[in-house]
Amino acid sequence: MPQTLAEKILQGHTDDTITGAGQIVQARVSLVLANDITAPLAIKSFEAMGATKVFDPEKVVLVCDHFTPNKDIDSAQQVKVVRDFARRMGITHFYDGGESGVEHALLPELGLVGPGDVVVGADSHTCTYGGLGAFATGMGSTDVAGAMALGETWFKVPPTIRATFTGTMPQYLEAKDLILLLIGRIGVAGATYKALEFDGPVIRDMDVEGRMTMANMAIEAGGKVGLFAADEKTVAYARAAGRKDPAHIVPDPGAIYEQELTFDVSGLSPQVACPHLPDNVRPVEEVSSVAVDQVVIGSCTNGRISDLRRAAELLKGRKAAKGLRLIVLPATPMIYKQALREGLLEIFMDAGAVVGPPTCGPCLGGHMGILASGEKVLATTNRNFKGRMGSLESEVYLAGAAVAAATAVTGHICHPAEIEKGN
Amino acid sequence: MPQTLAEKILQGHTDDTITGAGQIVQARVSLVLANDITAPLAIKSFEAMGATKVFDPEKVVLVCDHFTPNKDIDSAQQVKVVRDFARRMGITHFYDGGESGVEHALLPELGLVGPGDVVVGADSHTCTYGGLGAFATGMGSTDVAGAMALGETWFKVPPTIRATFTGTMPQYLEAKDLILLLIGRIGVAGATYKALEFDGPVIRDMDVEGRMTMANMAIEAGGKVGLFAADEKTVAYARAAGRKDPAHIVPDPGAIYEQELTFDVSGLSPQVACPHLPDNVRPVEEVSSVAVDQVVIGSCTNGRISDLRRAAELLKGRKAAKGLRLIVLPATPMIYKQALREGLLEIFMDAGAVVGPPTCGPCLGGHMGILASGEKVLATTNRNFKGRMGSLESEVYLAGAAVAAATAVTGHICHPAEIEKGN
Repeated sequence: MPQTLAEKILQGHTDDTITGAGQIVQARVSLVLANDITAPLAIKSFEAMGATKVFDPEKVVLVCDHFTPNKDIDSAQQVKVVRDFARRMGITHFYDGGESGVEHALLPELGLVGPGDVVVGADSHTCTYGGLGAFATGMGSTDVAGAMALGETWFKVPPTIRATFTGTMPQYLEAKDLILLLIGRIGVAGATYKALEFDGPVIRDMDVEGRMTMANMAIEAGGKVGLFAADEKTVAYARAAGRKDPAHIVPDPGAIYEQELTFDVSGLSPQVACPHLPDNVRPVEEVSSVAVDQVVIGSCTNGRISDLRRAAELLKGRKAAKGLRLIVLPATPMIYKQALREGLLEIFMDAGAVVGPPTCGPCLGGHMGILASGEKVLATTNRNFKGRMGSLESEVYLAGAAVAAATAVTGHICHPAEIEKGN
Repeated sequence: MPQTLAEKILQGHTDDTITGAGQIVQARVSLVLANDITAPLAIKSFEAMGATKVFDPEKVVLVCDHFTPNKDIDSAQQVKVVRDFARRMGITHFYDGGESGVEHALLPELGLVGPGDVVVGADSHTCTYGGLGAFATGMGSTDVAGAMALGETWFKVPPTIRATFTGTMPQYLEAKDLILLLIGRIGVAGATYKALEFDGPVIRDMDVEGRMTMANMAIEAGGKVGLFAADEKTVAYARAAGRKDPAHIVPDPGAIYEQELTFDVSGLSPQVACPHLPDNVRPVEEVSSVAVDQVVIGSCTNGRISDLRRAAELLKGRKAAKGLRLIVLPATPMIYKQALREGLLEIFMDAGAVVGPPTCGPCLGGHMGILASGEKVLATTNRNFKGRMGSLESEVYLAGAAVAAATAVTGHICHPAEIEKGN
């Protein structure tokens, strides 16, 4: 029978015949991921279950990216646990120090994830790889420990919501705006344990980095995965990252969708998620009176080279508003170096930014830009829960890189056109 | 009567006639400094003493550099206290975000300190400015609060130890080695409440940045100040930094010294201060069996452009040892941009380094590279007290930029010649 993307990808990893949503299947995983926060918990479970070796030392990836370079003794001890485990298990893909970067930006660029993969990670934004046509999802550290030992895990085949984007992308609009629009429409629980499948001419025109930005936030609507067909662009991206023979994967005509949503992006304004939930989404014009203390450009959502280029284009020759802290965190060493070579880092610094190392940093309230009480931030990150970036009395607004850059210049949340007109 | 450098500079700031060491004088200060750790304490004292305005809003400098970009909520609240005070007092020189950098590297390059100045700072390494011929010293936050309010404070005129450096600087030797040599000789209390006055042909040949590196560590021998005559080099440096008519200042022939030390640097090896005191100094050859987990290049001691150039020269085309974390922290935005333009940042990244933003970072156990138990670091910083950079069971070795770069490559503490031979 015709299959959705979720069904089709899972089918490639199970001996069970997938017949539809709700079915429980046992699937082989392509890759298992954990980071410096979650790996220590997974390792503890791994050892508690009596496991002595990982199923494949080349398919367990450990990335130290959340509190690194280590912000304190506790985080240093955490990384030490991960490092020691990696050595003991002969893990090939252990990333620390100058080789490390934000996990969900790092794995795609290293070709460690690609079309048709099933990936489980002890991090909720593992769904990012759906942008490459991978069934990738976050799991608790205990489940991830099981997958590390066995190389397989069970899934309930998710029902799929198909989201079709049509129309013409207005100037300044980017992938982030589309996923915010969707989350605003269906809510933070609108896709709980469901697959989101993105389609339509706007999606087909979108580059792979934009797709990863959208897939990244599937979890903010509760989605199990956020999936994009693997097309020519995906294949080219995966090949450039070193994948051998990446496959095209498209959903079957006639596949059964639980729900179909359509979004016409023509004339759409940039979107902003207001405190304290990612579904509290408004067009930028409605929040343009909000003054912010800090702007953060980075993270697994929007810390890629295309995001930095977008921000740099608007920041070039301009200055961050007096008193506003602008923090730019290229998501990986490769992105950092690319931005350096293209002159983007210099543009950011000339604008008064702090350019930090590749780290998750303040996104999760880790380090590198934590907020005091009463402070407001506009960030290109993915979550704005109360206290997410610091004090419980601080506020996080989420937007794309263009809105972030424009906001840095004016000091209040604003449409990118506002600063372009002003010049 | 003939005056030492300390006496001469103080004389320019007091109406008392200085007659010699031990005398108590009231002196006008050129500048008062505090940072994000000490300013909140100073502000509290300032308010407790009923002060309502600073003596001169252009002469109180507040630099947020220790835990910035803020590592956690507490440090964010600290900076907020400083920021609010700066706004309330109309402080001209408040540095935060992308304008900030390590205070003792920032103030000289901005021309805020210069020859003949008397500077007090709520930071022990305020003595750095002695490299420019300024009587600059660290004080407790309460004393600094008094100086912030009054623009003056009292000093006991310190007796002076004159340290003369002669001979020929061997290849790879740098200013850091000379100050470590001195501290190793006289001990961490060898100059307590005394002025160190540096002289001799080696000092006269040394650039101003090297002099600041040496002055910076005067406090590690207990020194009240570490002073260098202001010569042509000093004047040129100060003028380039925007100072108007910087003065030449030299000690008088016949000035009275409590002690005279002479160091012949010919044939000297690079020096390393071993755990857990800066006076536990050995030639690099004696500690070359020590494997380290991390190398840090940065800080107010050795985070200037000359240090980065020195390190980059050795790191160019080489890689940091497998498993070793190399962290490079240019000390100010200006240094960062200069290093970027000269291609140094790319050399560091190609070597596998994390390049971090301008911050004191791990030097004082703040953030950006804290150590776990059992770990060892070689750092270009100034203090290696037990637990200084993290766990009480970690160890800090101090050296110059060349030894740091070479150590990063081999993974064990080593002489720079070792890697040059190896290539």
